[in-house]
Amino acid sequence: MFEEGAKLKILHGVDKVCDFSIGNPDMIPPQEFQRVLMEEAGRTEPRIHGYMPNAGFPHVREAVAAFASDEQKVDLTSQHVLMTCGAGGALNVALRAITNPGDEVLASAPCFVEYGFYCGNYGALLKLVPSTDNFDLDPKAFAEAITEKTAAVIINSPHNPTGRVYPEETLAELAQVLEAARKRTGRRIYLISDEPYRKIVYNGLKVPPVMALYRHSLVATSYSKDLSLPGERIGYLAVNPAADDSEKLIGALTLCNRILGYVNAPGLMQRIVARLQGASVDVGIYQAKRDNLKRIFDDAGFEYAEPQGTFYFWLKSPVADEREVVDALKKELILTVPGRGFAGPGWFRVSYCVDDAVIKRSAEGFRKVRKLFGEYC
Amino acid sequence: MFEEGAKLKILHGVDKVCDFSIGNPDMIPPQEFQRVLMEEAGRTEPRIHGYMPNAGFPHVREAVAAFASDEQKVDLTSQHVLMTCGAGGALNVALRAITNPGDEVLASAPCFVEYGFYCGNYGALLKLVPSTDNFDLDPKAFAEAITEKTAAVIINSPHNPTGRVYPEETLAELAQVLEAARKRTGRRIYLISDEPYRKIVYNGLKVPPVMALYRHSLVATSYSKDLSLPGERIGYLAVNPAADDSEKLIGALTLCNRILGYVNAPGLMQRIVARLQGASVDVGIYQAKRDNLKRIFDDAGFEYAEPQGTFYFWLKSPVADEREVVDALKKELILTVPGRGFAGPGWFRVSYCVDDAVIKRSAEGFRKVRKLFGEYC
Repeated sequence: MFEEGAKLKILHGVDKVCDFSIGNPDMIPPQEFQRVLMEEAGRTEPRIHGYMPNAGFPHVREAVAAFASDEQKVDLTSQHVLMTCGAGGALNVALRAITNPGDEVLASAPCFVEYGFYCGNYGALLKLVPSTDNFDLDPKAFAEAITEKTAAVIINSPHNPTGRVYPEETLAELAQVLEAARKRTGRRIYLISDEPYRKIVYNGLKVPPVMALYRHSLVATSYSKDLSLPGERIGYLAVNPAADDSEKLIGALTLCNRILGYVNAPGLMQRIVARLQGASVDVGIYQAKRDNLKRIFDDAGFEYAEPQGTFYFWLKSPVADEREVVDALKKELILTVPGRGFAGPGWFRVSYCVDDAVIKRSAEGFRKVRKLFGEYC
Repeated sequence: MFEEGAKLKILHGVDKVCDFSIGNPDMIPPQEFQRVLMEEAGRTEPRIHGYMPNAGFPHVREAVAAFASDEQKVDLTSQHVLMTCGAGGALNVALRAITNPGDEVLASAPCFVEYGFYCGNYGALLKLVPSTDNFDLDPKAFAEAITEKTAAVIINSPHNPTGRVYPEETLAELAQVLEAARKRTGRRIYLISDEPYRKIVYNGLKVPPVMALYRHSLVATSYSKDLSLPGERIGYLAVNPAADDSEKLIGALTLCNRILGYVNAPGLMQRIVARLQGASVDVGIYQAKRDNLKRIFDDAGFEYAEPQGTFYFWLKSPVADEREVVDALKKELILTVPGRGFAGPGWFRVSYCVDDAVIKRSAEGFRKVRKLFGEYC
């Protein structure tokens, strides 16, 4: 997608293309980031860019644990936190440590396209579970999908691509399903909560704490979205202190962080995020972008799931094969992503971490394309 | 090892412990690094910390390709270079792309302890091949070890832990062995050259270019040692342009870089190393440390392999089980690593990327411990 967008921009001019294809934040990082970056970059002690323990600098893990304890409503110490190369690194480390070849991992469809690859790296298989009509996760469907091979469930809230934030009741119900399954099969199922968009929520919504609801839980996240740093690869994995053998698990995860070749999360960025716990880009700006797009989509006559968080709009295609709509939009130089890439056919994704001018410019194209396709079938 | 050293230092005082256990460079990065870091950190354009193509910034890949072409004596373009999270990341990406579960990968023993883990991540098996008496790699032994399951050979020169630099003749012979095996089994065997110590060589020695000698070759490396940046996780993987299907291979490697969760090498460090091609810490300082240790070991009566490069001394244990010597040294607060961790029992490793004072202080302990054990058996 990255390359395709780049090509179109060269062909037609960067100011002609409306690229809604990638979740690559356009906002500059919060101001305090720049100050802290310059301070930390200015340090020249020996080994300041050297190896630290594979789990990360102790003081960084401590700062993260303090903040995450508040978010998750459990008492995390530095021992429960592993600094990682973003959430992608955190998820790979977790799956390498938790799964055996042949195991199954469940996720709610639609979902982030990479989960299947991440499982496949270690011989595990991603099994998709249908979501409810309004894209909430469906605990009953999970109950049906669980087998003795189920090693883990990955959830993602706020959700890419639907913008959905799962309510606490649903999560509590899922926790019950996982506990019941454990009693049935004797195997504990880890709940991996992938939450890089936790801070990108609208109207003061709170993302419920998974750790307070289920003890065999891990949180995988990054600073890519809330600090606009996706290219710097910094995030963390936290383990619920209440999990059985949590110490052993952290040991295994730390080993996996090392042997997967990450070795440790990038050191300079570790030191920076330690000092920016709780900092975030202005979410109000994303909310304004969402609202502007909402007006455009209402005006054009698109149906959609209104995002409660993230910077993704999930639009219903007026025809069964959403690729027809995506192709028609591309002719208008509007780049979006077909839903089938997320196991969500019949829908398509508009990523709005883009300049306001891009949103404004896209209005006509969306209107034109919507008109091409008659009523929703 | 990191944790054990830290504990001893707390117990006895940091100025009492001689920690030769870890390859964590103590030299500060070259001066131009600090200047370039501050300049690049000062940039605040939108998306300067954002995603770039998974293979890395195009201008960074171009700068690396130009310099590496000179080192490898082949014409690399940016298309042949993938920026990675250090050499550990590069090796994982290569093994994920090249091997199938059940495949075998060969390496010369002793070797870097992580290779076996790296292979195991993807269900491949590391098979060790004995080296010659002077720790050169032994092409004939490789010829005997190759089977239809052999997917790749990993070599490491300058070599951790022996400090050996493989001569061009040996590499050319290995290349012939691999070509002959291909004719026999029909399967091409990739030669992965792990060369993070390429610039850390003594007396003006040159490390021969693997790519000029064998076309199915990849170079995995990092800036950890020559720029003293191991905690920042920046390196690259280069593919020989002469390899069959090199374009397909680069595509697969780029995909693996993404799906292993690295996504891309840390962006800020990419931009920095692009401007520091050819820069290096002063190798003369490492050479002086080597020479000081050599005097200490000669004086104490240790036998060893004299390092031609790296910052590791490989010492022969006076008794069959080198752990006895390592334990005796630990009582003198000298930390070293038993060779069996590198599949080199009967030897032990002294990592000398440490302060000169540490080397000086260690003399008495080495002498004392050498005396404890009589003649070499």
